[in-house]
Amino acid sequence: MQQCDTLILPGWCIPVEPDGLVLTDHAVAVDDGRIVAILPADAARSSLRPGRVISRPNHVLIPGLINAHTHAAMSLLRGIGDDLPLERWLRERIWPAEKRWVSAEMVRDGTRHAIAEMLLAGTTCFSDQYFFPEIVAETASEMHVRAMIGTPVIDFPTAWAANASECLAKGAELVHDRFAEHALISSCFAPHSAGTLSDDAFSELRIMADQLDVRVQIHLHESQQEIRESIAATGLRPLARLAKLGLVNSSLLVVHGVYLDRDEISQLAAARVSVAHCPRSNLKLADGIAPVARYLSGGVNVALGTDGAASNNALDLLDEMKTAALLAKVSESDARTLPAAAALRMATLGGATALGLAEATGSIENGKWADLTCIDMQHFRTQPIYDAISQLVYSASSRQVSDVWIAGRHLVENGTLTQIDGDEILRRTNEWQQRIASHAGE
Amino acid sequence: MQQCDTLILPGWCIPVEPDGLVLTDHAVAVDDGRIVAILPADAARSSLRPGRVISRPNHVLIPGLINAHTHAAMSLLRGIGDDLPLERWLRERIWPAEKRWVSAEMVRDGTRHAIAEMLLAGTTCFSDQYFFPEIVAETASEMHVRAMIGTPVIDFPTAWAANASECLAKGAELVHDRFAEHALISSCFAPHSAGTLSDDAFSELRIMADQLDVRVQIHLHESQQEIRESIAATGLRPLARLAKLGLVNSSLLVVHGVYLDRDEISQLAAARVSVAHCPRSNLKLADGIAPVARYLSGGVNVALGTDGAASNNALDLLDEMKTAALLAKVSESDARTLPAAAALRMATLGGATALGLAEATGSIENGKWADLTCIDMQHFRTQPIYDAISQLVYSASSRQVSDVWIAGRHLVENGTLTQIDGDEILRRTNEWQQRIASHAGE
Repeated sequence: MQQCDTLILPGWCIPVEPDGLVLTDHAVAVDDGRIVAILPADAARSSLRPGRVISRPNHVLIPGLINAHTHAAMSLLRGIGDDLPLERWLRERIWPAEKRWVSAEMVRDGTRHAIAEMLLAGTTCFSDQYFFPEIVAETASEMHVRAMIGTPVIDFPTAWAANASECLAKGAELVHDRFAEHALISSCFAPHSAGTLSDDAFSELRIMADQLDVRVQIHLHESQQEIRESIAATGLRPLARLAKLGLVNSSLLVVHGVYLDRDEISQLAAARVSVAHCPRSNLKLADGIAPVARYLSGGVNVALGTDGAASNNALDLLDEMKTAALLAKVSESDARTLPAAAALRMATLGGATALGLAEATGSIENGKWADLTCIDMQHFRTQPIYDAISQLVYSASSRQVSDVWIAGRHLVENGTLTQIDGDEILRRTNEWQQRIASHAGE
Repeated sequence: MQQCDTLILPGWCIPVEPDGLVLTDHAVAVDDGRIVAILPADAARSSLRPGRVISRPNHVLIPGLINAHTHAAMSLLRGIGDDLPLERWLRERIWPAEKRWVSAEMVRDGTRHAIAEMLLAGTTCFSDQYFFPEIVAETASEMHVRAMIGTPVIDFPTAWAANASECLAKGAELVHDRFAEHALISSCFAPHSAGTLSDDAFSELRIMADQLDVRVQIHLHESQQEIRESIAATGLRPLARLAKLGLVNSSLLVVHGVYLDRDEISQLAAARVSVAHCPRSNLKLADGIAPVARYLSGGVNVALGTDGAASNNALDLLDEMKTAALLAKVSESDARTLPAAAALRMATLGGATALGLAEATGSIENGKWADLTCIDMQHFRTQPIYDAISQLVYSASSRQVSDVWIAGRHLVENGTLTQIDGDEILRRTNEWQQRIASHAGE
């Protein structure tokens, strides 16, 4: 009898790899934080001696969901500027609020709130892009959540750094070096968008990213206006400008990518660039609908992101998955487009690939970290079950998430945070709400 | 001191009428099933002697949500034909399954499931369209839910009736006459779509609807294919054909209305016809995105519906509201389109107006029935709160619904059904699942 820490017995196990597979009467064994076996339940009972058996007969077990793009600390700004277009939303609401309120303390509290929200919604890994990335990294590490921490690269003074060079240096030192050996934390550079950096700053960024072997995530081709402004300023569409500067390679993560033409899709596929699709944010800011089915058929890896809570307004990958599948159908005028299994893949293995973590997470496979999410299907909205993947994608709500494990640690159980004081986080959020609301409209 | 049955003290009260109003420190008094006062909490405490005080300090109180179009019993067919286009979905999956399985027993069990699901998601009223409408009416009445019961009008033999004339006669007798004086149940005629009835059958329907003074709800202009087929068969677009037959008047409820041109919008506004917008079903079946912001600005009343669970796949008005707001923004390329308050109005008073029930329900106003829904905002995804309406529409999930009252009866409390045996419903659903799944693909 082989020992293992935990044996999970779900009603349905959807490993994501191989694509579309649904296992029933199977067990997943976890030891020392990793998946060590996926086997028939009977075989598991006779061959394994688990420290704990977790029976979830009405539940679907999936790889932990991966949020490929967010600004976690913006949870504290959720709802301050709704029903406004992107440019006005940024210039009139978000940037002034950030100028006034962003601090290490705000980033810590906002990130804690976002992580609690994401965990309860089944997310085990997120890619972040915000000020004070070292605080985001510390917070994710303390809360035992997997994260790729994006260092913002901005060429004007902010609360965090004076210019792009200082951003890069701080990112390398405070985020990359300090967390280099961390099992959960990785880092990347995250310039806001192509228009915010000079060619020189991008060149400096490219050199640094190559040296450290880290990814670059950037909001790109999010709106028609962004593309028009780039052409007016540089003669090039943003992606072409990045290509000229040597940044279009397998380390690039294009966030949004709402507008990519046929040649650009080929270019991204050839360079093995991933796109982080943020469908609800794109709708809410009226950016458009990214034709992600074409990206997939063109060979581009697509991940899913929530974007920040201020433009979504929730950090809920189940919602994004459903929205992505529904939008793909209507934008291709074909209900067969992006079937349920493809949407689930985007939210899991697609995300892991985009973040360079496909060896570590994103599917239920032997040897990967045990980043797992369990969803209780015994609710009216998810019964009856004819097809577990379909029911998960089209019907399940994040409030049905019962359990979440990250690297084997059981962080959510019975829909409740096991190791985090949620009330304390909400108390701090309420303090921020009072501070920020008292200055609204100034 | 005036007596009343119940005094509700919510953190925020959103009465919907007047538009956009948010009341804090207010109370809603309920007596004998009706709203009898909306007043400051202090005044309520000093002037009223309630039988029960219900304090909900972290909650938003709204009018009960109104589902303006569903096929409740199809909850039992949820997920049997996902990722298929409308025509194939109907012809290959839904119609064969209905032919085999639809019975009074199936309709009772499926409707019970759907009502339980809708109640837990904050819905207090629904408009139904399915076989055995008398069973739907009985079930809604037994479960104390407000409903407009649509009698299907079909000109070929079904498990329920032999032809259109028999449908009309049965609808008049079994549904209309029997429930004529019922406080919760109203009835209407519900032909499937324009293409399924002859001119003669429509004329007979019109006469009967006029005599009984009931509404007619019909799937109309749902897809381009439907419009093309109508032109090929009759030379007219479906709406024009109905107009020729005298059916375009204030009793008409156009379900879907994905494709309506400028003249048709004017025609509907002039005739005071409502549209039941079912955004998620329209996406899932790849029908298209109804430009509802144009309908509203053109003076057409718009309601929200989930459609049946088999094409959605959940009966969740909060999801529809959010989706409607997001889609309107992207389809008009303007993030200001359909702001949160307008979306909430569609899901409440817009629905009541569409169903001819605006005197009875749809807003929190003195004299209306106490159809009320309370949502607990003390969750990560709905904190902090800068704007309660915005947070409700863009962030809240139906699982946060804490309380539901219909005509003053407290049917959901602490997120749990108070008067319905949910386990028994799910047990029956599971039996149907086993029966139906064992014959899938036959």
